[in-house]
Amino acid sequence: MAAIDLNSDLGESYGAWRMGQDEAMLAIVSSANIACGFHAGDPAGIYNTVKAAAARGVAIGAHVSYPDRVGFGRRDMDIAPEQLFTDTIYQIGALKGIAASLGTTVTYVKPHGALYNRIAWDARQGQAVIDAILAIDAGLVLMGLANAPILDLARKAGLAVVAEAFADRAYTPKGELVSRREPGAVLHDKDEIAERMLRLARTGTLVAIDGSTIEISAQSICVHGDSPGAVDIAETIRQRFEREGVAIRSFVTGA
Amino acid sequence: MAAIDLNSDLGESYGAWRMGQDEAMLAIVSSANIACGFHAGDPAGIYNTVKAAAARGVAIGAHVSYPDRVGFGRRDMDIAPEQLFTDTIYQIGALKGIAASLGTTVTYVKPHGALYNRIAWDARQGQAVIDAILAIDAGLVLMGLANAPILDLARKAGLAVVAEAFADRAYTPKGELVSRREPGAVLHDKDEIAERMLRLARTGTLVAIDGSTIEISAQSICVHGDSPGAVDIAETIRQRFEREGVAIRSFVTGA
Amino acid sequence: MAAIDLNSDLGESYGAWRMGQDEAMLAIVSSANIACGFHAGDPAGIYNTVKAAAARGVAIGAHVSYPDRVGFGRRDMDIAPEQLFTDTIYQIGALKGIAASLGTTVTYVKPHGALYNRIAWDARQGQAVIDAILAIDAGLVLMGLANAPILDLARKAGLAVVAEAFADRAYTPKGELVSRREPGAVLHDKDEIAERMLRLARTGTLVAIDGSTIEISAQSICVHGDSPGAVDIAETIRQRFEREGVAIRSFVTGA
Amino acid sequence: MAAIDLNSDLGESYGAWRMGQDEAMLAIVSSANIACGFHAGDPAGIYNTVKAAAARGVAIGAHVSYPDRVGFGRRDMDIAPEQLFTDTIYQIGALKGIAASLGTTVTYVKPHGALYNRIAWDARQGQAVIDAILAIDAGLVLMGLANAPILDLARKAGLAVVAEAFADRAYTPKGELVSRREPGAVLHDKDEIAERMLRLARTGTLVAIDGSTIEISAQSICVHGDSPGAVDIAETIRQRFEREGVAIRSFVTGA
Repeated sequence: MAAIDLNSDLGESYGAWRMGQDEAMLAIVSSANIACGFHAGDPAGIYNTVKAAAARGVAIGAHVSYPDRVGFGRRDMDIAPEQLFTDTIYQIGALKGIAASLGTTVTYVKPHGALYNRIAWDARQGQAVIDAILAIDAGLVLMGLANAPILDLARKAGLAVVAEAFADRAYTPKGELVSRREPGAVLHDKDEIAERMLRLARTGTLVAIDGSTIEISAQSICVHGDSPGAVDIAETIRQRFEREGVAIRSFVTGA
Repeated sequence: MAAIDLNSDLGESYGAWRMGQDEAMLAIVSSANIACGFHAGDPAGIYNTVKAAAARGVAIGAHVSYPDRVGFGRRDMDIAPEQLFTDTIYQIGALKGIAASLGTTVTYVKPHGALYNRIAWDARQGQAVIDAILAIDAGLVLMGLANAPILDLARKAGLAVVAEAFADRAYTPKGELVSRREPGAVLHDKDEIAERMLRLARTGTLVAIDGSTIEISAQSICVHGDSPGAVDIAETIRQRFEREGVAIRSFVTGA
Repeated sequence: MAAIDLNSDLGESYGAWRMGQDEAMLAIVSSANIACGFHAGDPAGIYNTVKAAAARGVAIGAHVSYPDRVGFGRRDMDIAPEQLFTDTIYQIGALKGIAASLGTTVTYVKPHGALYNRIAWDARQGQAVIDAILAIDAGLVLMGLANAPILDLARKAGLAVVAEAFADRAYTPKGELVSRREPGAVLHDKDEIAERMLRLARTGTLVAIDGSTIEISAQSICVHGDSPGAVDIAETIRQRFEREGVAIRSFVTGA
Repeated sequence: MAAIDLNSDLGESYGAWRMGQDEAMLAIVSSANIACGFHAGDPAGIYNTVKAAAARGVAIGAHVSYPDRVGFGRRDMDIAPEQLFTDTIYQIGALKGIAASLGTTVTYVKPHGALYNRIAWDARQGQAVIDAILAIDAGLVLMGLANAPILDLARKAGLAVVAEAFADRAYTPKGELVSRREPGAVLHDKDEIAERMLRLARTGTLVAIDGSTIEISAQSICVHGDSPGAVDIAETIRQRFEREGVAIRSFVTGA
C-alpha cells in the first residue's frame, strides 16, 4: 500500500501570543515540525505542543531557525557557519530535553523559513546545519526541499534525509517552487490540491505551472497550519488519501 | 584523604561581550557552572566553554536562570511554577545537547542569581526546579545553598544534592549568608579565605561574623570568576589545599 | 454635559503575532495605551497603531512595561529604581519618536501589567516612573489606579494625573479591585457593566461587591480589547453613554 | 584654521557586560556614536553614556542597527524597508528621549555595522534609513562612508550629510575600504595613522594601498574605542592634530 508523510509547522505561539491551530493539525498530520524558541515557541508552549504531539503519536521534529523572533525567522541572515552550527545544536538540544522530560523523542530536523530556503542551495550554511545534526545525534533525519542540493549534501555526510513537497505551491518545469512573487505561486482550491498530492504520492509526479509533467521525489508533504483554510486543505488531503487507500504515516514510524 | 569540590560560574560571555576568565578558572576548579542562555551565554560561547571544561576534566553543570538577560538573572521574578518548570527543562536540554555534541555530559544543575536565592527558601519555585530536573534526567545532582530548605526538599523528591559554601562570604551565627548590604559581608583577603575554606573542608565548621563557630556541611565551595582578584583567590585556595593534602575533586567523579 | 475618557490597551501585536482588535477598539475609545516594545509591540506594529489612533483623533499614551516580552509584562520584577527610571524614559522616547514621525504627540503614560499593579502601592518603583516622566516631558499625564497612593505621589511631584476605573472589575468596600482569584472579580454582563460605568461617570460612585456604595473618582474608564466580547462590552458602554448624553472624550483634548 | 571631527562608537556595554573605554574616548573625540539598544546598549548604560558625552560637550549621534544583539549588528540581514524604516525611528526616538531627559540633544545618525556597510551601496535599505530620519527629525545629519552612494542619496532627499574616513583602515585606489579579508587592510602604527589623518584633514587626500594618491572628502574621522590600543591611536591623532593646529570639532557645533 502507498503511504506518505504529512507534516506541518506547529508550536509557533509565543508567550501570550497564539499562532496556528495546533490541536486541529495534530489530528491530521503524521509529523510535527516544532518551533525551538529562536523564531517562535517559548518553553511552556513547546512543552505543551510536544506533549500533544506525543499523545497522538505524531512524530516530533526540531524546527530550527535563525535567531530572529521579531522577524519570525523569515529574514535571510549572513550568519557565520560556526554560529549556525552551535545555534542548531542548542535548539535541537532544548527540544530533545523537553521531549525526554515527556518520555518521547525528537526524530527529525526541519530548518525553518529563511534558513530553510538558504540552505536548500547554500552549501556553506547547509554544511553547518548538517554538521550540527551529526554532532548532536547522527540518527536524526534531515527534512529538506525536494530536488534541492541540500539533500545530496546531507546524504554524502551520512545523514538520512526526507524530501518534502509543498501542498499549496506551484512548481516550475525544473521542479522548483514558483516564487511567491509570481502569479499562481500559491494554490487555494482544496480539491485541486488534494488531487495533486494524491498524484504525487502515487506516481512521484506533478503538473508544473506550464502544464508539463515533472518528477518530485518526496516522502513528505508540507501543509500549513496558520489559517482556518489551511486546516481545511490538510483535512481534505487526509480524507482523499484515506478514501484512496494512501496511508498517512511518519517516515520514521513507517520505516 | 579529605577532598572537596571547587565550583565557579563560567560561560557568561554573550555574543561580542566578554565576561570572566574562563580559561584561568578552568585550570583551578573541579566543577563549571555553565550559563545556558537565559542570563548569559550564546550557543557558540557555551559550546566553547563546555569544550574547554571537558578538555580539562572539569565537571559540567547547568547554570539555569530566570529569563532576564539585561538583568543578568539577578532580579527576583514572580514566575509561575509551570513556566519555571519548562524554562528549566529547556535550558538543561540545550546544555545537554551541546555536551552530547562534544561527547561529554552534564552532571549537575546549579540555579543562578536571583533564582538561586529565591528557591533556597521558596518551596513553590524550588519544587518547580526539582520537578524539571526529575523530568529531564533524574540522575542530575542539584547544587544548592548549604543549610537552606531547598536541599531537603530535593532529597525528599529523590534528587541527589550537593551543598555549597561561598568562599568570599561571611556567615551569620545561624549559618546563613550575611547580606551584601551589611558591612563585612564580602571577604577580600585571599589567605584568610583559603584558611577558612581549609577549615571548612576539614571540619565542616566556619567562624561566623560574630566570632561564634558554626557548622556548614558543604561538599562544594563556590569561587567567583569575574574579576582578576577572584582568580587569585581561587588559585590561593587551590594551592593551600594541595599543600595541606586536601584534594579538589568533583563530587561526581569523586563518588 | 458630563464627559469621561474611555481607554484601552492597543498595539500589543508582536512581529508575526496578532493580538487585540485595534481597529475596532479605536472606533470606540478616546485614549489608546500603546505598547512600547518591552512587553509587546515591534516598531512596525507600534507605528501602524499610532497612525491609526492619530487618524481617528484618539489620544496616544505610552504603555510602558517591565522588560519581559515572554511574560507579557505580567510578572512582578524586583527592578532597581535606576533601571526602571531609564527603561521608562527609553520606552516613552521611542513612542514619542514614532508619534513625531507621524506628526502627532504622546500625551500620557500608563504603566502596564505587573508594573501598573506594583507602583500603585510601591513608592520606590512608583517614584522611579514619576521621575522618568518628569525628566523626559513633565507635560505628560500619568494614568493610574483610582484610589491608589501612586496618584498622590505623582501629584506631589508636580505631575498631572488621571485616575481610572476598570469597566469589567468588581470593587471591594474599600474601593480597591477585587482580586482576580476571588469569585465575582470579573464582570461579564455588558448591560450591567454599561449601567455601572454610567453611574460612575455621573456620580463618581459604584456598588461594591458587598452591596455597599463606594466613591471612585475616575476620569477614565479602562476597557479591554483582547477578546471579541471585550469589543462588545466597549461598544455597549459607548452606545449607552451616547444615548444618555455622556460624552466620551480624552482627558487631554477635553481639558 | 583647519578643523575636523573625530567620532567613535560608544555606549556599547549591555547590562552586566562592559565594552569599550567610554570615559577615555570621550576625553578625545568630538562626536559619540551611541548605541540605541538594538545591537548594544541597555537604557541605563545609554543614559550614562549620553550624560557623560553631554558633560564633555561631545556631540551625540544615534548609532542605529539591525535588531541583532547576539550578533552585535554585524550580520547582514534582508530586512524589509518598512521594518527598517520603523526600527530606525524607534531607535532614534529612544535616544532622543534619553537625551531630552538629560537636557541635551541628538544631532546626527550613524548606522552601525552590517547596516552601515549595506546602505553604503544598497539604495533600497538606504532610502528606508533616510526616510526614517526625515520623518522623525529632518534636522539630523546622516554620517556615512566617504565616496559611497548613500551620501548622494541622502543629499537628494534633503538631508545634511557628513562623510567619514576610517583612521586605521587602508583604502583602494578607487577610494574604497580594503576588505578586512585582505592583507594590510587594518593599520596598527599609531604615528603612521596620525600622519595619514593629518594629511587627510589638511588636503583631503590619502595614500592608497598601491601607493597612489586618492581623494577622500571627509568631515569626520572614525576611531575605534574597544581596545586599549584604539584609545592610544585616538590620543595620538588628537595630540598630533593639536600640535599642528588642526582643531578637533564636531561638525555640528563647528558649523
